[in-house]
Amino acid sequence: MERIGRYTLQLSGNTGVIGSAAVGAKMEGEGPLAADYDYLYPDDGLGQETWEKAESELHKKAVTLALKNAGKNKEDIDMIFAGDLLDQCIGSTFGIREMDIPFMGLYGACSTMALSLAAASVFVDTGAAGTAIASTSSHFCSAERQFRFPLEYGGQRTPTAQRTATASGAVVLEHDQPCGILIDKVMFGKITDLGITDANNMGAAMAPAAARTIKDFLTDTNTTKDDYDMILTGDLGFVGSELLHELLITRENTDISGVHNDCGMMIYDREAQDVHAGGSGCGCSASVLCSHIFKRMRNRELTSVLFVATGALLSPTSSLQKESIPGIAHAVHLIFR
Amino acid sequence: MERIGRYTLQLSGNTGVIGSAAVGAKMEGEGPLAADYDYLYPDDGLGQETWEKAESELHKKAVTLALKNAGKNKEDIDMIFAGDLLDQCIGSTFGIREMDIPFMGLYGACSTMALSLAAASVFVDTGAAGTAIASTSSHFCSAERQFRFPLEYGGQRTPTAQRTATASGAVVLEHDQPCGILIDKVMFGKITDLGITDANNMGAAMAPAAARTIKDFLTDTNTTKDDYDMILTGDLGFVGSELLHELLITRENTDISGVHNDCGMMIYDREAQDVHAGGSGCGCSASVLCSHIFKRMRNRELTSVLFVATGALLSPTSSLQKESIPGIAHAVHLIFR
Repeated sequence: MERIGRYTLQLSGNTGVIGSAAVGAKMEGEGPLAADYDYLYPDDGLGQETWEKAESELHKKAVTLALKNAGKNKEDIDMIFAGDLLDQCIGSTFGIREMDIPFMGLYGACSTMALSLAAASVFVDTGAAGTAIASTSSHFCSAERQFRFPLEYGGQRTPTAQRTATASGAVVLEHDQPCGILIDKVMFGKITDLGITDANNMGAAMAPAAARTIKDFLTDTNTTKDDYDMILTGDLGFVGSELLHELLITRENTDISGVHNDCGMMIYDREAQDVHAGGSGCGCSASVLCSHIFKRMRNRELTSVLFVATGALLSPTSSLQKESIPGIAHAVHLIFR
Repeated sequence: MERIGRYTLQLSGNTGVIGSAAVGAKMEGEGPLAADYDYLYPDDGLGQETWEKAESELHKKAVTLALKNAGKNKEDIDMIFAGDLLDQCIGSTFGIREMDIPFMGLYGACSTMALSLAAASVFVDTGAAGTAIASTSSHFCSAERQFRFPLEYGGQRTPTAQRTATASGAVVLEHDQPCGILIDKVMFGKITDLGITDANNMGAAMAPAAARTIKDFLTDTNTTKDDYDMILTGDLGFVGSELLHELLITRENTDISGVHNDCGMMIYDREAQDVHAGGSGCGCSASVLCSHIFKRMRNRELTSVLFVATGALLSPTSSLQKESIPGIAHAVHLIFR
């Protein structure tokens, strides 16, 4: 573990992914990445009484499958780093409460997969944890109820709105991995608030944070976009991704087109699935990373991915109080060796 | 950094507190620890338009004063670890958003001071951060609105209810400290849920988690209560503390009376201030630790304190859905040398 530049942490080089899982529901199962998911529920209810319990079930499933794929039992795990979008993070806490694993609760909104992965990586790389899990989840129906309106209200979504994925992703990390998907570097983001107040345009609120994190990471590491097979943002969607490109070109003279993609643009078929500006929610980037991206890395189609998940740190109360929306973006540089 | 026993992390011995601050408002200023606070606002409004903005102001004040007491500028800080009770942790995020410090958002309910301190300690001790801040806040009025009823409703509080402190605490940590208040060990807690469903009796929901963390810590470190000047729980209050004693005596044959105290029992004058079962909220244990306890440590009256802050991981939604209340307790062993 060594700090390079101002903000970036260079890991020792052998902290790696020993198992992962991506779980989704109906819409994710109808999307273009369906074949790469570990498990897809046929509906959003998951046999539970409430949407919140459904989200916890989804989270539990992802963690359970990741453990299985890693060949580990819950007793083998030293720490779990998890969080989600719901008030007081009940998607995570109720999902994992029976697992008896020391727990660091995180809040990073839609950036949580990068936040939990970065935190877990630091713990594993420094020996603070031998084996650790990073996980997150989101659910369309629980998120709509909480951030906008209950589904029963029948509210119309604006063209800039993104659809919260009903999905979860979990990663099991361990030290001393000679090969496979390895965590090379991490960077924790800074809160960035350019004064956006439209809670139906999260992409715009988060794009400045993503631009800043990408720029700081490239500066710290003295690299350019050409050093990465993919710069993968989480959940900016179509609107936010366009803004990100613009911000990086006009302010930093950096054109990431060609190498950039966004989990919110990948998870659904924009036209066929009527998702407006794309997918969002912690589970979107978590499940895209743990399904499609990890698969492509394992197939050596991608050997260097800069994963930058973005979060909008608003609450329904802050929006009602006419506050602007602070954004944040955390980065994890993954390599395949 | 070395793991001892199953759950405890032994730090290198020179990660220490280089500055701290405790901030409160009117009730805290009328309480028995008032003289030890760094700053006390004359009312709960803090000159802000809303209770939530008042909480953010409180948080900002604590961090700003801790920086000042440490002789540091915000540019000197590599990471801030913060969280609070409000939905999506807006008490923290809006409080620190202009500081431009890499941010790990945490959710641990009332356990957040121990959680943030433990996380920051691991980062500083391993060199992942050179200098880091751990902070948290709570506000009586924003918490009542969110978890129970808006104050205007005039709801009556039950005898087991605790009063959320309008307070904040912040700690600045750095490596290579030869003396002073040092972080010796940390332990991240496990979610513990014995099926308590009364959201007006948080002490009862959190006591089992505290008992488990204390028991696991004593087992891991092969120590007894006599090895500590104080075992300081956060915010169990009078009801929860009694339950903690009972649980430890009947299940673990450990009597911590004599060495145990609780921040929720210390912050207010139970009779004169009409606080029912005591104080609570992240800001309660944070500000008691950063004021009275640190002062007594610096005066060498306490040289070994096991700080165990407890959190109830419920949400208003989970309570309405008749879920039980998962508890958690994180431990930080502080020594003065």
